[in-house]
Amino acid sequence: MMKNPLKIFMLINCLGMYDWSLSAKYFLNSYVFASTILNSGSQRHIHFIQKTLNMEIFGCFALTEVSHGSNTKAIRTTAQYDPTTQEFIINSPDFEASKFWIGNMGKSATHAVVYAQLYTPGGQCRGLHSFVVQIRDPKTLLPMPGIMVGDIGKKLGQNGLDNGFTMFHNVRIPRENLLNRTGDVTPEGVYNTSFKDVRQRFGASLGSLSTGRVCIIGMSVVNLKLALSIAIRFSATRRQFGPSDDEEIPVLEYQMQQWRLIPYLAATYALDHFSKTLFMDLVELQRGLLQDDKSIRQAELGREIHALASAGKPLASWTAQQGAQECREACGGHGYLAMNRLGDIRNDNDPNCTYEGDNNVLLQQTSNYLLNCITDRHQDKTRIESPLESVNFLEDFKDILGQKFKISRVEDCMDSSVPLAAYKWLVCYLLQESYQKLNQERKSGSDDFEARNNCQAYYCHSLALVFIEHTVLQRYHEYTHHSSTPAPLQPVLQRLSALYGFWSLSRHMAVLYQGGYFSGEQAGKMIKDAILDLCAKLKDDAVALVDVIAPPDFILNSPIGRADGELYKNLWTTVLQGSKVLERASWWMEFSTYKPIIGSLKSKL
Amino acid sequence: MMKNPLKIFMLINCLGMYDWSLSAKYFLNSYVFASTILNSGSQRHIHFIQKTLNMEIFGCFALTEVSHGSNTKAIRTTAQYDPTTQEFIINSPDFEASKFWIGNMGKSATHAVVYAQLYTPGGQCRGLHSFVVQIRDPKTLLPMPGIMVGDIGKKLGQNGLDNGFTMFHNVRIPRENLLNRTGDVTPEGVYNTSFKDVRQRFGASLGSLSTGRVCIIGMSVVNLKLALSIAIRFSATRRQFGPSDDEEIPVLEYQMQQWRLIPYLAATYALDHFSKTLFMDLVELQRGLLQDDKSIRQAELGREIHALASAGKPLASWTAQQGAQECREACGGHGYLAMNRLGDIRNDNDPNCTYEGDNNVLLQQTSNYLLNCITDRHQDKTRIESPLESVNFLEDFKDILGQKFKISRVEDCMDSSVPLAAYKWLVCYLLQESYQKLNQERKSGSDDFEARNNCQAYYCHSLALVFIEHTVLQRYHEYTHHSSTPAPLQPVLQRLSALYGFWSLSRHMAVLYQGGYFSGEQAGKMIKDAILDLCAKLKDDAVALVDVIAPPDFILNSPIGRADGELYKNLWTTVLQGSKVLERASWWMEFSTYKPIIGSLKSKL
Repeated sequence: MMKNPLKIFMLINCLGMYDWSLSAKYFLNSYVFASTILNSGSQRHIHFIQKTLNMEIFGCFALTEVSHGSNTKAIRTTAQYDPTTQEFIINSPDFEASKFWIGNMGKSATHAVVYAQLYTPGGQCRGLHSFVVQIRDPKTLLPMPGIMVGDIGKKLGQNGLDNGFTMFHNVRIPRENLLNRTGDVTPEGVYNTSFKDVRQRFGASLGSLSTGRVCIIGMSVVNLKLALSIAIRFSATRRQFGPSDDEEIPVLEYQMQQWRLIPYLAATYALDHFSKTLFMDLVELQRGLLQDDKSIRQAELGREIHALASAGKPLASWTAQQGAQECREACGGHGYLAMNRLGDIRNDNDPNCTYEGDNNVLLQQTSNYLLNCITDRHQDKTRIESPLESVNFLEDFKDILGQKFKISRVEDCMDSSVPLAAYKWLVCYLLQESYQKLNQERKSGSDDFEARNNCQAYYCHSLALVFIEHTVLQRYHEYTHHSSTPAPLQPVLQRLSALYGFWSLSRHMAVLYQGGYFSGEQAGKMIKDAILDLCAKLKDDAVALVDVIAPPDFILNSPIGRADGELYKNLWTTVLQGSKVLERASWWMEFSTYKPIIGSLKSKL
Repeated sequence: MMKNPLKIFMLINCLGMYDWSLSAKYFLNSYVFASTILNSGSQRHIHFIQKTLNMEIFGCFALTEVSHGSNTKAIRTTAQYDPTTQEFIINSPDFEASKFWIGNMGKSATHAVVYAQLYTPGGQCRGLHSFVVQIRDPKTLLPMPGIMVGDIGKKLGQNGLDNGFTMFHNVRIPRENLLNRTGDVTPEGVYNTSFKDVRQRFGASLGSLSTGRVCIIGMSVVNLKLALSIAIRFSATRRQFGPSDDEEIPVLEYQMQQWRLIPYLAATYALDHFSKTLFMDLVELQRGLLQDDKSIRQAELGREIHALASAGKPLASWTAQQGAQECREACGGHGYLAMNRLGDIRNDNDPNCTYEGDNNVLLQQTSNYLLNCITDRHQDKTRIESPLESVNFLEDFKDILGQKFKISRVEDCMDSSVPLAAYKWLVCYLLQESYQKLNQERKSGSDDFEARNNCQAYYCHSLALVFIEHTVLQRYHEYTHHSSTPAPLQPVLQRLSALYGFWSLSRHMAVLYQGGYFSGEQAGKMIKDAILDLCAKLKDDAVALVDVIAPPDFILNSPIGRADGELYKNLWTTVLQGSKVLERASWWMEFSTYKPIIGSLKSKL
């Protein structure tokens, strides 16, 4: 794992290709639970990690409460220190403060990392801290005294994962169970912390926040791979209508079907590259943390990865959500049949839009990062640059804003350098607009909270998305044009890069016109022509391109998506292997013989 | 029903508010099955309808086959007439031609209207006809000889409906079971038809095709009503963050949350009005059919309703699909909890995008209708007008194309007349572009099939959507400005109309710029400002506006969507009432005691 950290990323994704609930159960215990103890605790907590790895205990991560998710500061569970017994007493003030949504907690976890407000004797609150709390007996799986723990019930997807809740009623845990990396309590009840500044303590934790988000980008990409493999193989084998009554053509031959699916295939390739490279950037960050790197670069790297992950997660999860829905619709009725798996893919992807930070809320992290770049530039005249160079082009802010789209022939639109240049302009334009809007809101008397809220729609929200699309495209453009990429593959990969660029860009065309980068009728038409042209050029490679990213048939588990293309045979076989397909329903007698008599419920008075 | 035909529309929708599967089972038997026999059959089939109404038999409508849905001409089931016994012999040539997806067929139907190619003695094929085939014994629910019938399995939604399949192996049915409205076979095997022209026969059936689509528009609107009621009530009670650490504000106070939800609320109101008025237009059409009206107006009305329903169904079903997803995400994790029903609403709405014609395929019907209008105008110089006046404005085609957006202050954007004028320009522009593109494709040597296919993306597809959005907005604009609408309600309803107009229009801003209707930075900014302004103005009415459209709590069946706003109490109560919430899982012993020993699977060699 240390030698090739991508292996853990791949393990999560491979398990997830088979079943996301399995992947989540494994990951929440082995990584989220164990690594929180490792990162937030100290030597005295190592025994929990050993027991986790030995499967003696099974863990979960309990932060979210019924009434608070995103606003973690408002968490209300309490941990009161009692020096007489050297214990913490954990309490849930009411049901609104019960821990809720916690993966693995519903039926299987024996231990939880619980976030609670720490109170020292005398009643002083020391802020949010984490504690290891045993919630069930590992031998009987029965709850510990004072703990009400249960399963929150069915969700839209990932029902193999037991999401749970707990309420704590005077639950006593040893003093040593406080994870004491950022603050500790002496046996007598005195609170110590090495951090003077709350912001500093928060900054140190940014890296670990990014891990979950980077993983979700990867998970979303996996869902795109699964959905596209099914829909494109189906489209290459399903025939419907044709130039004459006798001849039907595969639906992938239709321009509409290409236009619906192939851009998502391009997005899958571009986002896949982004997710892997961002994961490697994260590995670099974590190596720095382990080596206790206190350099400015390390801090800057943490901030940049935080900005990239906070917008990358929304982009990837939404693309996967919309892509899965498009794939399901593109397969018509057969896409709506559960056995073909497009529903499960979409439903299992759905929480990616919400957990580890709601997508819309997260995007603010990225726009704030960009606004800070430009504010710093205005104030201290320092160069705009970042360790991963994602914002370096902003140094040419003024030049870029002066540029115009000047291409006049669609043949010159076949490379991703064209949308890339447009994206640079877009980021600069929306950054300038957002900056001005924010200042205008402040001048008109809004406090910071209100001013920021009123700059989201059409400004900061779009800015964050455009910035991350630029980054994804930039990385994929460089990769597809790099000499280390095999020459025979470059043409098709470069087409994918161009298609992803133009297709993403086409959603921002109104802004390109509004700000004057585009003018005249031809610019808009050319982008659309380029998209259709690239789809047509990629159409014949589409099946090969999904064969590269599809898992084996057993894992893909979709009759219409099997690699052999025997669409109907596979479908029919699976239908007939279903449970009780040809049997009468258990209620047949009520339906046919003992049915209610019409009018029998009328009053006989 | 004859006095107030809206009652049947309301019955379907009210049953559907409770459960769509129930509504579908009822509707497929009582209306689709029975009315097909009524409309396609004759006096000799009345006994089937009587038995259906008496619940002695239970019906389904069997058109779709495994390998053919949209392309109904390619249906391959055969009905060979045998004069020696005066019977038809029904056969499925292979499993690709088995009837598939048929609602009610899986477990409960005893009879089916089966579409098959009719062959007369001598082997001549007479085209697609419908036959009543008994598939199960009503007393035992066991299949009839030669019929393999079963359930196709789980779907993404509506799993209370038993979708089924059948294969026919030499199934003999009486000659009289041919539904003989358009063609009949004599006892000796001679084929007769009153229709000389296949197109004429097809035109006569357009009206019945529209019924299903108009109903789906209504169903989609119901789904929007349910989803918006839940999400807006949740947003008015859920608090998260605030201007200070002590004070949290309802999430509906955030501009982002308003921008995500309130436009869908406006769409719900506008589409609701559209669906009801279109249904009444359909009633007029059907009255004409019953009175055997052979006027030109009746034929024109059929074509116009066909065009409106063919684009209205895609618009409504997609709006509901995206709206339900936005509502689910806007409720965060709680929206992902199944008990809150947003998942079921989305999943039950999903097939609305596919059945009764795939949305993308259907849109071609509407664009063809519009292209024919303009072609006729060029050829015979007749006026462009239609019974419902939806295309009459095209008569001013040239004038409209010369117009520009001239408003300079956002205060002048508060009425739906502004987006309505822009929509008229958009329809004309895209109609002209599509017409030119189609001619260009033909000139460059494409046959009609290929030329039409290559005009869909960005041209005909957008044209059909823009046209139907215009119609929906036009109708709602007129309604909200009409003197019969109560004056105290007009301001809020007019705001909904304006918001729906601007919000829908904002997705076409690139085209408005591309074609020159918009120019300069202010036009685009003003539309966005108008949307945000209208959202803010409607925010305080949002809860009242959903109270108008929400069903009673028992029917809405969503803890976070109850009218009392006791979000957490209702949620918590429902969680604790779940099945086996606090119990150990059945597998607890395997998990805690008999777990596999690490390394035990290693080879012992």
